[in-house]
Amino acid sequence: MLSFEDKLNNYAELAVKIGANVQPGQTLVVSAAIDAAELVRLIVKKAYEAGANFVKVNYTDEVVTRLRYDLAPEESFLVPPTAQAREWTELAEQNAAFLTVISSNPDLLKGVSPERIASNQRIFGQAMAKYRQYQQSDKMSWTGIAFPSPDWAAKVFPEAPKEEQVAKLWDAIFHAVRADQEDPIGAWHKHIDTLQAKSDELNSKKYQKLHFAAPGTDLTIELPVGHIWAQAGSVNEQGTTFVANIPTEEVFTAPLKNGVTGYVSSTKPLSYGGNIIDRFKLTFENGRIVNFTAEEGQDTLARLIGMDEGSHYLGEVALVPFHSPISQSNILFLTTLFDENASCHLAIGSSYAFNLEGGKTMSEEELAAHGMNASITHVDFMFGSPEMNITGITHDGKEESIFVNGNWA
Amino acid sequence: MLSFEDKLNNYAELAVKIGANVQPGQTLVVSAAIDAAELVRLIVKKAYEAGANFVKVNYTDEVVTRLRYDLAPEESFLVPPTAQAREWTELAEQNAAFLTVISSNPDLLKGVSPERIASNQRIFGQAMAKYRQYQQSDKMSWTGIAFPSPDWAAKVFPEAPKEEQVAKLWDAIFHAVRADQEDPIGAWHKHIDTLQAKSDELNSKKYQKLHFAAPGTDLTIELPVGHIWAQAGSVNEQGTTFVANIPTEEVFTAPLKNGVTGYVSSTKPLSYGGNIIDRFKLTFENGRIVNFTAEEGQDTLARLIGMDEGSHYLGEVALVPFHSPISQSNILFLTTLFDENASCHLAIGSSYAFNLEGGKTMSEEELAAHGMNASITHVDFMFGSPEMNITGITHDGKEESIFVNGNWA
Repeated sequence: MLSFEDKLNNYAELAVKIGANVQPGQTLVVSAAIDAAELVRLIVKKAYEAGANFVKVNYTDEVVTRLRYDLAPEESFLVPPTAQAREWTELAEQNAAFLTVISSNPDLLKGVSPERIASNQRIFGQAMAKYRQYQQSDKMSWTGIAFPSPDWAAKVFPEAPKEEQVAKLWDAIFHAVRADQEDPIGAWHKHIDTLQAKSDELNSKKYQKLHFAAPGTDLTIELPVGHIWAQAGSVNEQGTTFVANIPTEEVFTAPLKNGVTGYVSSTKPLSYGGNIIDRFKLTFENGRIVNFTAEEGQDTLARLIGMDEGSHYLGEVALVPFHSPISQSNILFLTTLFDENASCHLAIGSSYAFNLEGGKTMSEEELAAHGMNASITHVDFMFGSPEMNITGITHDGKEESIFVNGNWA
Repeated sequence: MLSFEDKLNNYAELAVKIGANVQPGQTLVVSAAIDAAELVRLIVKKAYEAGANFVKVNYTDEVVTRLRYDLAPEESFLVPPTAQAREWTELAEQNAAFLTVISSNPDLLKGVSPERIASNQRIFGQAMAKYRQYQQSDKMSWTGIAFPSPDWAAKVFPEAPKEEQVAKLWDAIFHAVRADQEDPIGAWHKHIDTLQAKSDELNSKKYQKLHFAAPGTDLTIELPVGHIWAQAGSVNEQGTTFVANIPTEEVFTAPLKNGVTGYVSSTKPLSYGGNIIDRFKLTFENGRIVNFTAEEGQDTLARLIGMDEGSHYLGEVALVPFHSPISQSNILFLTTLFDENASCHLAIGSSYAFNLEGGKTMSEEELAAHGMNASITHVDFMFGSPEMNITGITHDGKEESIFVNGNWA
């Protein structure tokens, strides 16, 4: 049985060696809340030991963020993050790796004017467009891991005694990311191989369409010619492997922008921009969201979909079996990094260039011509369930079962 | 008797209203260690309440800094902070205010290769030259305050029980900055008026030279024609007042670059770049340091003086009476922000353009032609004592006593 320190050490090692896969001479950019300092310091140490030339840590503070939303004048939310956009774009061009430690409080922005949040997200998305484009074509290595803040832990384990909540969330995270295993690096190599085998199988099928059927969902998604099923284990422009999410259980590809028809219902709450959107349903015609309702967070959902034209379309379709380990834990993490890996999910917004043959080197216009969606946003939401049946339809009209009752057929 | 919270609140208020003097619509840049988050959050709140448009917090982490010095490759210390230099220069041009919360551990870099430290300081100084030039001509508002980290408190109060050290340093800081008074803002206005009256008096004298005599010190400093005695209460390009240091007890001007002759001995340790330099003596000929010895930190002193050509010359001469409140506390703070305000001091390196008539709008060449020193560094060191006698020499050769036995004559 590993101690907490052993597991934390494993976790930092996974972040540096599997997630960002830091190479000698490289710059690593770490973004994290100040509460995560203990983990950040371990990551910094391991990154230098892996040969990093410089580790730049951008510490954030949720209290400072909230103070701005509560007290700053309206004009504050119209100022683009020019300096960050320029710096991150340049660092990406210089082959830096980017590691984000997520520890967001799902209720951080509860009660804040949704206009302010949307305004800030739009300004941020627009300013960071170039960086996002680099990220979505895997130009450089990028990865996300999680850190259990007390506020987040309290939302996930509201029934647990206050002093045990963070420890419980740590246990859940360590288990989900395999940091509680004796050889976590080896376990991850094996895991990525398994996901890759599943992607290879789907790629060999070259389906024209997928059909999703479950209570509240009847959705047909056409796939672009030349679509590629991928898993989070990627290869950057330099040929270095990395894993974009830790944990990850998904295989995913891009929908044909105008080829989505029907309706889909969410099966888990979506934590978006410091607010919760729950029990929502989207209806599509020719790929476009033409109707949407949410029992909770309707305004927030409206602002997400209204971000730009591309946020009216999908950019990702991901398959996760219901018996995946994170799903089996039965924990609702209220953070997409985990919940998306417990459930089939779709993303509103931009698609990944690497989900199309030759896409990594295509211009925005070429990607669009191939039916790939572009947007300043990319937000996953969960629609998987044990009742989910997925059918693949080939170009010659043959139907094959992919998922039966939430799991691989 | 004010509570700790009252005093902390006063301190944040002083930082925002007296130090940076944040104006409506302005951006405030706060730089602080993550340990100072409680104080930083109060500052952010008060800045927004004062009308700030955006408060950008740059959190630093001493452990991360030290990890870099211990583990990064040599090349790491040759990478200039280009992004920060560009961002800060632009923000200064946009009239942002800059507030630094100092909480450095005097031993942070103990044992680190002095070459690495010097290399990093040189690269940083060179990259930040434009920003420094703006700062030294009071283009924008800038201020520094302190936060008692446990490591710092342990150095200041080594005899106190561990659990009382930080509280003792808080008390000393609150007292030195007048945050323990009922009306700290009023007290500061009065204090700045007193310092200004002293500056006005010295300005009316237009001394040609100052002569400093004390055990280990026999130094003559010629002053430039048109020199201005200033105090930390300044006015930026927009006409807004601010106070560059909290606390401050000094009145200061610029020496004539080539007009310094004799020798000077330090009277307090100098904490520089995470190392201590102590019991040192500098000898000057025609303004240039031609000899130096330190009983502790000789290498560090050599690297400070060897930073560039300008770091062989002085850029500031400051008068602080021995019976000033910080000096009377008899606490050796081991941080220049406090110790310089308990003692007459000199600065190695660049001079302030505002210490010369018309200097704020002069080019670098014009400033040099007037005998003002330029350098990528500016480091104060303390040489005041109760034995210090200072004589002013007028252009017609008259000698007047300025300090007798460490205090104003």
